[in-house]
Amino acid sequence: MKYPKIPLAQTVIELCKSHQIKHIVISPGSRNAPLTIGFTNNDYFKCYSIVDERCAAFFALGIAQQLKHPVALLCTSGSALLNYYPAIAEAFYSDIPLIVLSADRPKHLIGIGDGQTINQQDVFANHILESVNLKLDLKDEHRLPDDEDLPIFKSIEDKLERFLGLQQDIQTSNEIEINSAIQRAVLKSGPVHINVPFDEPLYEMVDNLSIKLKPVKLETKAHKIDDFEIKQCLEDWNEASKKMILVGVNHPNSIEQKWLDELAADDSVLVFTETTSNLNHNEFFPSIDKIIAPLDDNEFKQLQPEILLTFGGLIVSKKIKAFLRKYQPKQHWHIGEKEANDTFFCLEKQITIDPNTFFSKFLPKITHYVKSDYRRVWDEVKKYRAQRHNDYLKELEYSDLKVFDVVLKSLPDNSNLQLSNSSTVRYAQLFDLNKTLQVYCNRGTSGIDGSTSTAIGCATINEQPTVLLSGDLSFFYDSNALWNNYIPNSFRIIVINNQGGGIFRILPGHKDTENFDAFFETKHNLSAKQLCKMYHFEYTSVADEKQLKLKLKGFYSESERPKLLEIFTPRTLNDSILLDYFKYLK
Amino acid sequence: MKYPKIPLAQTVIELCKSHQIKHIVISPGSRNAPLTIGFTNNDYFKCYSIVDERCAAFFALGIAQQLKHPVALLCTSGSALLNYYPAIAEAFYSDIPLIVLSADRPKHLIGIGDGQTINQQDVFANHILESVNLKLDLKDEHRLPDDEDLPIFKSIEDKLERFLGLQQDIQTSNEIEINSAIQRAVLKSGPVHINVPFDEPLYEMVDNLSIKLKPVKLETKAHKIDDFEIKQCLEDWNEASKKMILVGVNHPNSIEQKWLDELAADDSVLVFTETTSNLNHNEFFPSIDKIIAPLDDNEFKQLQPEILLTFGGLIVSKKIKAFLRKYQPKQHWHIGEKEANDTFFCLEKQITIDPNTFFSKFLPKITHYVKSDYRRVWDEVKKYRAQRHNDYLKELEYSDLKVFDVVLKSLPDNSNLQLSNSSTVRYAQLFDLNKTLQVYCNRGTSGIDGSTSTAIGCATINEQPTVLLSGDLSFFYDSNALWNNYIPNSFRIIVINNQGGGIFRILPGHKDTENFDAFFETKHNLSAKQLCKMYHFEYTSVADEKQLKLKLKGFYSESERPKLLEIFTPRTLNDSILLDYFKYLK
Repeated sequence: MKYPKIPLAQTVIELCKSHQIKHIVISPGSRNAPLTIGFTNNDYFKCYSIVDERCAAFFALGIAQQLKHPVALLCTSGSALLNYYPAIAEAFYSDIPLIVLSADRPKHLIGIGDGQTINQQDVFANHILESVNLKLDLKDEHRLPDDEDLPIFKSIEDKLERFLGLQQDIQTSNEIEINSAIQRAVLKSGPVHINVPFDEPLYEMVDNLSIKLKPVKLETKAHKIDDFEIKQCLEDWNEASKKMILVGVNHPNSIEQKWLDELAADDSVLVFTETTSNLNHNEFFPSIDKIIAPLDDNEFKQLQPEILLTFGGLIVSKKIKAFLRKYQPKQHWHIGEKEANDTFFCLEKQITIDPNTFFSKFLPKITHYVKSDYRRVWDEVKKYRAQRHNDYLKELEYSDLKVFDVVLKSLPDNSNLQLSNSSTVRYAQLFDLNKTLQVYCNRGTSGIDGSTSTAIGCATINEQPTVLLSGDLSFFYDSNALWNNYIPNSFRIIVINNQGGGIFRILPGHKDTENFDAFFETKHNLSAKQLCKMYHFEYTSVADEKQLKLKLKGFYSESERPKLLEIFTPRTLNDSILLDYFKYLK
Repeated sequence: MKYPKIPLAQTVIELCKSHQIKHIVISPGSRNAPLTIGFTNNDYFKCYSIVDERCAAFFALGIAQQLKHPVALLCTSGSALLNYYPAIAEAFYSDIPLIVLSADRPKHLIGIGDGQTINQQDVFANHILESVNLKLDLKDEHRLPDDEDLPIFKSIEDKLERFLGLQQDIQTSNEIEINSAIQRAVLKSGPVHINVPFDEPLYEMVDNLSIKLKPVKLETKAHKIDDFEIKQCLEDWNEASKKMILVGVNHPNSIEQKWLDELAADDSVLVFTETTSNLNHNEFFPSIDKIIAPLDDNEFKQLQPEILLTFGGLIVSKKIKAFLRKYQPKQHWHIGEKEANDTFFCLEKQITIDPNTFFSKFLPKITHYVKSDYRRVWDEVKKYRAQRHNDYLKELEYSDLKVFDVVLKSLPDNSNLQLSNSSTVRYAQLFDLNKTLQVYCNRGTSGIDGSTSTAIGCATINEQPTVLLSGDLSFFYDSNALWNNYIPNSFRIIVINNQGGGIFRILPGHKDTENFDAFFETKHNLSAKQLCKMYHFEYTSVADEKQLKLKLKGFYSESERPKLLEIFTPRTLNDSILLDYFKYLK
């Protein structure tokens, strides 16, 4: 095994290993050479090389999303680091653990006009769990500070001893900082930033470690709920005949089936889920907008819950947010380890344990179900809407909505479905998806900027095939995502290309004026065809329903290369079709 | 003319107009609709629509680099803003004025789990001249705060009066903030951030402005130099027989020719320039590395100046920095309005006026030249090196160095030459360029991330044709730059494609190992061909010298589309050729 000569580089690498940070996404550079050398020459690590740091960071995020354990990012000094920021913010709001390792110049070379040098310390301050700025190793005894406050050295030995002492202090302080940051990333599940200064020479290697790490004490989470709190919850729960459970972004298989069954059996409980909730039960209510979009004031009042229980991350549906802000529940409880968002301005309780634990303590204590027709009434609505949905879709001409219907039905069992933001994730909410799918979307910042890279990260690490369903703007935005040597052949991209930001046509702008086309819809004539050629994807395109169905048939079967299907839809129809759909549902 | 209904949007737009901010680069979104509507419906403004905010920001930087006046960037809320960061940092270190306008949600909707919402306030804190966070307009009298501290209103009239008063206070405070930020960008020449909260409805328009702006008082710069300071400079100057002038990044035509002639006539003065200095005189010393790379300790001592005078921005040559840090001048003076970098750890004087003014006050007062053979000695070296350079190049096989020689000689007079970072800008320093060229490179952060977008910004605004000379990594990194509807047909890109980050082969890594190829050189087989097809560029490629010379012939002539020439060079030769070149120079 080869190690970088610089002790600080050894320390960072060995501590990553101690914390089981195995996956390292590296972007090229010289200042980060000590760490690049160390990680890539150590068999413990799986390293990935990605040039564009914006893509690198979203790719790492896609891996960490699957592992639920930190992935490290490594880049050189300067603007490289800033290109990580969109993914850092996504990780921050989506609770995905990332360790950002940025190489930096020594302090005395910052702010004096050297190249590739910026002010890296705390640069992600607004969206990071912890930022630490490590101290430079002393290089040798000659570099001992000539500070007047230091005692005069009696001899060379004295000076050397003093040097070793100072270097040990630096080593210790760096170890503490690194451990603190990594633990924070693990325990709080989010991004942390470790800024690592290196002095030249940067490329030297040694055969043995020169450092010895103190044993790492791993803290564990200690969230608990006491019986009194459970008792209080029970009292309110048992008195409410309208209880709504609303689930945000949620990992697959995070709640045991028996608790889901328990909730499903209670007539006083409505469970509203989104595709990104990854929770399925026949008695639950997916496709929230399908239920509530057509409601009038009286119906909203009927739907208004007494208790709203939420868990999971961010919620896609704007309509449910608007509804619950206007028709607030008496109490909103949020279950989850992270500080809750007061999304509906009526947060009453926050129970800081994971939802599965909560249900395991809470549900067995419920001795009887409150008599209620809450669920039964809305079950009728659900059935009616499903019928209307099917009727509308059956007759529907070729359009975005139609394409989603066809594509979503085509997805193979147990795939990972990665959705891009904006229209794509919103359209997907209108359909009852195959219950074996695992569904993901970057809802932390809801950006269109890194969905393809995220999906590729997921595809790289998850054994089940991954399908990315993307709009055209989001796909072209992250086109560098395809500049990646780790894409498995099973990976599939489906781009629904309506030649612009179709979502803007649904918003109240002034459609079909020159300004609207250019500055809102951002109309274009791009195709993914050339990118596929460039990055060795198998490419197919379709522009009608018959072709689409035909091409989907072989699309998911094994192949020698990853594949992309580009579905061209008519640009100007989709907004009226969607508005008519909601009218038709009523 | 149409205006957005929201008074704050009107205020931002009208103040941009007052400050002659004419160019507005807009990325699509809904939260920023009030400003998009306002800017695009007002004939005063020239608006550009760019989807990828990273490219949008570098494109704006390229325009502002040419105008020397702020360009505004406008984006929606969320991660969109973070994609601006690489260009913001470049603008910060390169003194390029940019006004970042980010739309935001109202404060009460931030941090509660709404979509596309991050913590935008001060998000660029490390690299921004000023950040202001505007206040939301009061929407109507019903939104008057029900604060208990407010006196009870006697009547509706009373309430309305109070409302108008509060709204006027908000309006006034916002005006002050906006003016302050824009003035800072103009006076200090750098980026500022104005965060603008908007509440729904966002798309309403009106026919008349509802605001009335207070007249804007424009401050002017007041840097002066007093006679005493000049006198002190003169005393030292007249006693030194070795004076070196080193020019960093510098705007073309910023120093009058007569001052250049004056400096050139003084035998005790060496003027060292880089391609990015945009200063030419036969007596000056371009190609710094060509002069100093082969020097030994004795020669360095001979070259060591007594006075070093610097002006302009960052310096490309690492070798001159290393030289002047080791062989420090007795005094280092920096001339320029911005706070000077202490690049050589011996900054003695900082004269905060623009260099041309300094020379106009200083040079006429020099009554005699100090007797010195400083220039004569190094003139001999310069001539010798030029001869060796030519001899080496004449016999040189096809390689990066050879290609630079051929390409740089081919550039048409008066072109704007945009250089990408890393190898490209460094190779270019070795050649005496056509003196009619205007040369630019993003040396603020020296990133490889936005050179193409910057060049396109320059090409859009400058009447002379623009040629971008780029390495392959830098070109593919910023491939979305081509997703731009404003590229003039005269724009030319030359990509020197050596299949990876060739510069790493010159650094002391362990070449030609699997790890080196993947994680340092980041070897690839990409070509720009497909991107050219996608974005309607005329594409030509060459792979030998004869073809290169042939294809260059018609390359710059008028065309119906912009053109790209991809020059494939052998990947593994270039490092040894460059090392041999430096040896040969001696």
